[in-house]
Amino acid sequence: MLHFDTDYMEGCHPDVMKRLVETNLEQTPGYGSDAYTAEAKRLIRQALGTDDVDLHFLVGGTQTNATVIDGLLARHEGVLAAESAHINVHESGAIEACGHKVLTLPSHDGKVLASDVRNFIRTFYADETYEHMVAPGMLYISFPTEYGTLYSREELASLHDACREAGIPLYIDGARLGYGLMSDACDIRLSDLPSLCDVFYIGGTKVGALFGECVVARKGLLPHFFPLIKQHGALLAKGRLQGVQFSALFTDNLYLTISRHAILQAMRLKEGFCRKGHRLFIDSPTNQQFFVLPNDVMDRLAEVASFEVWGTRGEKETTVRFVTSWATRPEDVDALIAAL
Amino acid sequence: MLHFDTDYMEGCHPDVMKRLVETNLEQTPGYGSDAYTAEAKRLIRQALGTDDVDLHFLVGGTQTNATVIDGLLARHEGVLAAESAHINVHESGAIEACGHKVLTLPSHDGKVLASDVRNFIRTFYADETYEHMVAPGMLYISFPTEYGTLYSREELASLHDACREAGIPLYIDGARLGYGLMSDACDIRLSDLPSLCDVFYIGGTKVGALFGECVVARKGLLPHFFPLIKQHGALLAKGRLQGVQFSALFTDNLYLTISRHAILQAMRLKEGFCRKGHRLFIDSPTNQQFFVLPNDVMDRLAEVASFEVWGTRGEKETTVRFVTSWATRPEDVDALIAAL
Amino acid sequence: MLHFDTDYMEGCHPDVMKRLVETNLEQTPGYGSDAYTAEAKRLIRQALGTDDVDLHFLVGGTQTNATVIDGLLARHEGVLAAESAHINVHESGAIEACGHKVLTLPSHDGKVLASDVRNFIRTFYADETYEHMVAPGMLYISFPTEYGTLYSREELASLHDACREAGIPLYIDGARLGYGLMSDACDIRLSDLPSLCDVFYIGGTKVGALFGECVVARKGLLPHFFPLIKQHGALLAKGRLQGVQFSALFTDNLYLTISRHAILQAMRLKEGFCRKGHRLFIDSPTNQQFFVLPNDVMDRLAEVASFEVWGTRGEKETTVRFVTSWATRPEDVDALIAAL
Amino acid sequence: MLHFDTDYMEGCHPDVMKRLVETNLEQTPGYGSDAYTAEAKRLIRQALGTDDVDLHFLVGGTQTNATVIDGLLARHEGVLAAESAHINVHESGAIEACGHKVLTLPSHDGKVLASDVRNFIRTFYADETYEHMVAPGMLYISFPTEYGTLYSREELASLHDACREAGIPLYIDGARLGYGLMSDACDIRLSDLPSLCDVFYIGGTKVGALFGECVVARKGLLPHFFPLIKQHGALLAKGRLQGVQFSALFTDNLYLTISRHAILQAMRLKEGFCRKGHRLFIDSPTNQQFFVLPNDVMDRLAEVASFEVWGTRGEKETTVRFVTSWATRPEDVDALIAAL
Repeated sequence: MLHFDTDYMEGCHPDVMKRLVETNLEQTPGYGSDAYTAEAKRLIRQALGTDDVDLHFLVGGTQTNATVIDGLLARHEGVLAAESAHINVHESGAIEACGHKVLTLPSHDGKVLASDVRNFIRTFYADETYEHMVAPGMLYISFPTEYGTLYSREELASLHDACREAGIPLYIDGARLGYGLMSDACDIRLSDLPSLCDVFYIGGTKVGALFGECVVARKGLLPHFFPLIKQHGALLAKGRLQGVQFSALFTDNLYLTISRHAILQAMRLKEGFCRKGHRLFIDSPTNQQFFVLPNDVMDRLAEVASFEVWGTRGEKETTVRFVTSWATRPEDVDALIAAL
Repeated sequence: MLHFDTDYMEGCHPDVMKRLVETNLEQTPGYGSDAYTAEAKRLIRQALGTDDVDLHFLVGGTQTNATVIDGLLARHEGVLAAESAHINVHESGAIEACGHKVLTLPSHDGKVLASDVRNFIRTFYADETYEHMVAPGMLYISFPTEYGTLYSREELASLHDACREAGIPLYIDGARLGYGLMSDACDIRLSDLPSLCDVFYIGGTKVGALFGECVVARKGLLPHFFPLIKQHGALLAKGRLQGVQFSALFTDNLYLTISRHAILQAMRLKEGFCRKGHRLFIDSPTNQQFFVLPNDVMDRLAEVASFEVWGTRGEKETTVRFVTSWATRPEDVDALIAAL
Repeated sequence: MLHFDTDYMEGCHPDVMKRLVETNLEQTPGYGSDAYTAEAKRLIRQALGTDDVDLHFLVGGTQTNATVIDGLLARHEGVLAAESAHINVHESGAIEACGHKVLTLPSHDGKVLASDVRNFIRTFYADETYEHMVAPGMLYISFPTEYGTLYSREELASLHDACREAGIPLYIDGARLGYGLMSDACDIRLSDLPSLCDVFYIGGTKVGALFGECVVARKGLLPHFFPLIKQHGALLAKGRLQGVQFSALFTDNLYLTISRHAILQAMRLKEGFCRKGHRLFIDSPTNQQFFVLPNDVMDRLAEVASFEVWGTRGEKETTVRFVTSWATRPEDVDALIAAL
Repeated sequence: MLHFDTDYMEGCHPDVMKRLVETNLEQTPGYGSDAYTAEAKRLIRQALGTDDVDLHFLVGGTQTNATVIDGLLARHEGVLAAESAHINVHESGAIEACGHKVLTLPSHDGKVLASDVRNFIRTFYADETYEHMVAPGMLYISFPTEYGTLYSREELASLHDACREAGIPLYIDGARLGYGLMSDACDIRLSDLPSLCDVFYIGGTKVGALFGECVVARKGLLPHFFPLIKQHGALLAKGRLQGVQFSALFTDNLYLTISRHAILQAMRLKEGFCRKGHRLFIDSPTNQQFFVLPNDVMDRLAEVASFEVWGTRGEKETTVRFVTSWATRPEDVDALIAAL
C-alpha cells in the first residue's frame, strides 16, 4: 500500500533521530533551560538573520495557535482568519475555548486579501455599535494555506501593511513552512519572515521532526509567554527534545533541503496526474496536491494507495488530496502514477 | 423630537411601576426566594398552560443567552445560529468568552431553515475528521428575529424536529417575544412554545419591564442552573424585582395587551411609509420596521425624529429601522408620518 | 416578624424611587449614553473631588468583581485576596470561570495585612519555579469586609504601597461602601479613595438603590472596558436606570446620610445585645453585627426575628449575624432588643 | 557533576528508544488510530487485568490534569485537592484557565484524609448558601504525592468510598505511578487501581518514556473526550509515538522493572544520608528523598551535585530534595554519598 494521506505519517528524519539517540542518556535541566535548546535558538536566529526575535518551542500546531493567539489578544478581541483557516475549522474550538471569537474573512483558495482585511476593519469601526461586537485584534494566516497555496512577497507585505494601519499583529501559521519556502512559486526566504509579519512558527511536526513547533515573535511582543505556555499545557518537561530536533533541522540547512525534496516529489506527482489527463482542483505549488478524479478512477486507486477525500464523495467525480513530505520515496510516486 | 430608535427607550409600563412602588419598602429574602417571584412563576406557568417547566429570572438578554447556552452545551460543543444572530454579532463575544463557538447557518431575513440545520449536521458527521471540529450541540433562533421576521408554527415544528433527530435542544431568544406573538402574521400562542422548543425566554426588558428576562426550560434540562446564573453574574440580590415586574406583566394579560399596542403602531407606521411611496427593506410583521429611504428624505426626517441607520449610509438611499414599543404614542406615529 | 437578615431586603430609598417614577416615561438612548448617566457621573466626580477617574455602572456585585478583575489581570495572573473574601467564597467561581485563580492570604477578621501581601510577593519571586505558578496580578480587598471590619487610612495606605512596590493595582470591593465611610471608626472620606487605591466600586444595591454599582477606576487603567462589560453580560440596556438612581443618591449627600442611619441603628442594636450580656463574635463598627448567642436565646429570638446563622449551629451556642441598612426602622431595633 | 534534580533529566529508556528507531520510517495514520497505539492499549489493558476501561494518550502531566478535570467537571463544579497538589501550585493556573476552582483540603505530607473530604462535603451542603459557592465535583490526589508519600490500599479505598458517597469521581495523578507501585511500602498493584478510583493516569514522561501519559478511565466516564483532547491542544499528530513507547514500556514488565530500579537507588541514597547522620524532612518510601542539611554541608555538596532546594534557604539548615529515576546509575549514588 502506498500512503499519501498526509505529511505526518512517519517519525522523524534520520539525522534528527540520530541526534535524539546520541543525546538520549545525557542529563539536562528541564523546560527548555538546557544547552540543546539554546543551541537550537542560536541556529534558528542565524538562519533568520536576526537576534531581534523571541523564540519558544511548543509541541503541536493546534496548541501553538491557541497559545499564541491567547497571548496576543485582549479579552474583548477576536482573531481575523479565512473561513477555511485551520483555527476556524479543525481545532475543535481551541480558540473559543480560551475565550476568543474567530472573525472570518472570505477564503480565496485558502488565502486572505488585504482589501478584505481593510474592509472588515473599516466597516467594523464605522458601525456605531462596534463596542457591542468583537474587535479584530490580530490577523491569522497560514503559509502555505490549507489548500497548499502561497502568498507572494507583495501579498504578505500588503497584509502586513493593512495590519499595521489597524495596529494589530499579523501571525503566520507555519505548520508546513518549509514546504512553502521551497516551492518554485515562492519569492520569499525564511530570513524575510521576521520583517513580513509579527509572529510566525516554524513547523517541525510535518517537516522532519517527531513533533515540535518553534514560535518566532517580534522581541517583547509576547510578554510572560512562558507561564502561558505552561498554562496551556504546552510546556514539555524534557524541553531539550525540541532543542535537539531543531538543532539537527537547522544544521547544514536540513530543514530546507528536506522540504525541497517534498516539493520535487509533489511536482512529479502533479505532472503524473496531469499527464494522465486529470484535472487540478487547485493549482497548488506546494506539497499538497488536489485533483478532481472520476469516481471509478478514485476507487481503483484506493486499492493501492491511501489519500484523503476532500469534502464528500461526488456523484460522478470527487476531489481528493495527495500529500508528499520529506519522507516521500520517489519510487512511491512512480508507483502511484503507474497505478493511475 | 420623536424617538423610534429602539424598544428600550422608556422605563417600564405604569402598571409595573405601580407595583414596584407599592412593594418598595416591603422586606423579602433575596435571590428569588421571595413570594413575588413565586407568584410570578405561578402566573407564567398558568399562561403557559403547563407546570412541566423550570423558570429562572435573569437581568438582560446577552447575559441570558450566555448563561443558557453555557448551561446547555458540553465543552466540545458549539451553538448553531443564523449568521445574523444577536449572539453572533452583537454580544461582544459573550458566547466565546465562556468557551463556545457560534456555528453559523445562512440567514434568510434573519431566519434559519430546517433544511440548513439538517444539512449542517449531516455534513458534519459525514466528515471523517468531525472530532477535530466543533460539534453542533444546540440550535439558537430568535423570535421575532433581528429583522423583525417570524417563524410560522410549521417552521418552528420543523426546526424542532430537525433538532430532535440530532438529539440537540432548540433554544428561542425571546427578547421581543410579545411583539412576535401579537403580530397578525403569527400563528402560535405563548402556550404553544413549551412544546415547540426546549428552552426559550420571555423578554421583559423590551416589553414593559425595567429589565428582566424569564427563562422557560423543559423540566430538568438545565440542572444546577442556579449556581451557573450566579457564576455568570446574572443573579440579582433583590430577585423580587423581577418577581414583582413579571407578576404585573402576567396579570390581566398585560404582557400581550401592551405587545399588541406596539404591533398596531408598527402597522400604522408601515402603512404611512408605504402610502408615501417608500420601499420596504424587509416586510416585517412585528415592531421593527425597515425601509429604504432616499438620502434627502432620511436627512430631513432626522431633523424631527431619531431612528437607526441599518448598516452604512448608501450613496443615494439608505436602509433605516424604526421601532415601536408598548410605550409608543399614536400621536408620535402620526407626527412621524406627517413629517415624511 | 422583624428582619435583620441582610441589607438588601427592601427596594430602594423613596427619593430614588421618586426619581425613577418621575423619569419613567421619558425616552433616552441606551447603554448609559443618556443624560441621567452623565449627570450621575458629574455628581459622583464632584463627591470624589476629582475628574481623573473613569466611571462605569454595572448591575450587581459578583458581576462587577468578575468584570473588573478580568479587566485588570493578564491571562497568567491571579488575584490576591483574603481567604474569607467574597470572591473566594460566595461567587460560585465567577473569577475562575473567567480564567483566574484566587490566591489566598490569611484573613484577620476579614482583613488582609500589608506584610502578608509583601511576604507573598517576596516568596513568590524568590521561588525559582515561579513561572510555573500563578503570578499575583492585583490585590482585592473589601471595605467594609465580609465581617463588617474596616481598614484604617494607614492600613489602606500601607496596602497601596505594598501594591505599588509590586506594580500591581489595588481594588476595593465597596458593596457596603457607605456603611464603612459613615462608621465612627472610619478615618477616611469618600474623596480619599481615589488616591488610596486604583479601582473601587460604590455599592448601590445595598445602599439605597434597587440595584447598581459604580466602578471608579484610575483614568486609563481599564481600557476597552465597555465591550468587556457587555461580554460579561453586565451592560444594562436601560443604562439610565443606574444614572437616575445614582443621581438621586449623590444629590444632597443622600448616599452618606442614609448610610449613617444604618450605622446608628447598628450601634443601638449592638449596645442592646451587649447590655443584655451577650458576647460579640467580632467587634464590628459597621452595619453587620455578629454575636455569640446561647442556643435557647437564639431559638427564642428566631420566633420573632429573622437573621443569619453564621456558619453552623454550635452545640451550646451559635454565632449569628444581624444586619441593618438605610431602611431599618428604629422601632424594629427596639422591638428586637425587647425580644431578647 | 552528579544530577539528582528530578526524574526527567534523560531521554527515554534504551528499549523504548530502540522501538522508536525501528519504527521510525514506517507510515501510520495519525492521532492514535494506528496499530502501535492499539497494541499499547491491549498491553495496558492486560496489565490492568480489565477491558472495562477507556484509554487515552496525552503528552504531559499539566495538560493531562487540565483535560481530565475539564472532562469530569460541570461548569459550576470545582476540584478538591490537597493544598500542596501540583494542580494547585505548579500548573500556572491551568485548571482555572479552563474555568474551574481548586478547592483545597489540608495536606498531610502531601496526602488528603478521607475524613477531610467527608467533612468538606458535609459542611458544604449544610451551608444554606451552598449554591453561591463552588460545588465539589471531584477529588484529585497524586500517587505518589508531591512529597513522595503513598496512600495505603485502605486509605485509597476510604477516599474512594467518601467520593462514592458524595457521587463524585476520584482521579489519581500518576505522573510517578511506577515509583509508587514499586515501593516496598506500597500494598497495591497496578491492576488494583481501576477498582480503587474512577480515573488515573500512568505517567510515562518520568518513567522511561520521552514523553506521554496514559489516561485510564472507567468505561464511559469521559464521553467525547477525543475532541476535548484536541481542544486542549493535547492531541499529538503522530499519536503512534505514544503507542510505540507504551508498547515498549508494557512489554516484559519494563515499566515496573525500571521503576523498581529507581526505588532501590532511592533507598540506597536515603540510607547513605542517614548513615552520615542527616535528618529526613519526610520519610518518603519512593524516588523523591527529602533531607534537612546544614547549610555548609549543602553548599559543599552543591559543588559536585545538582539537586533541588525545597522552598527557601534557611538560616542554618535547608531542606533539599534528591530524586532518582529509571536512569539513575548506582555509581552516581555511591559518588554522592561519598561526597557528603
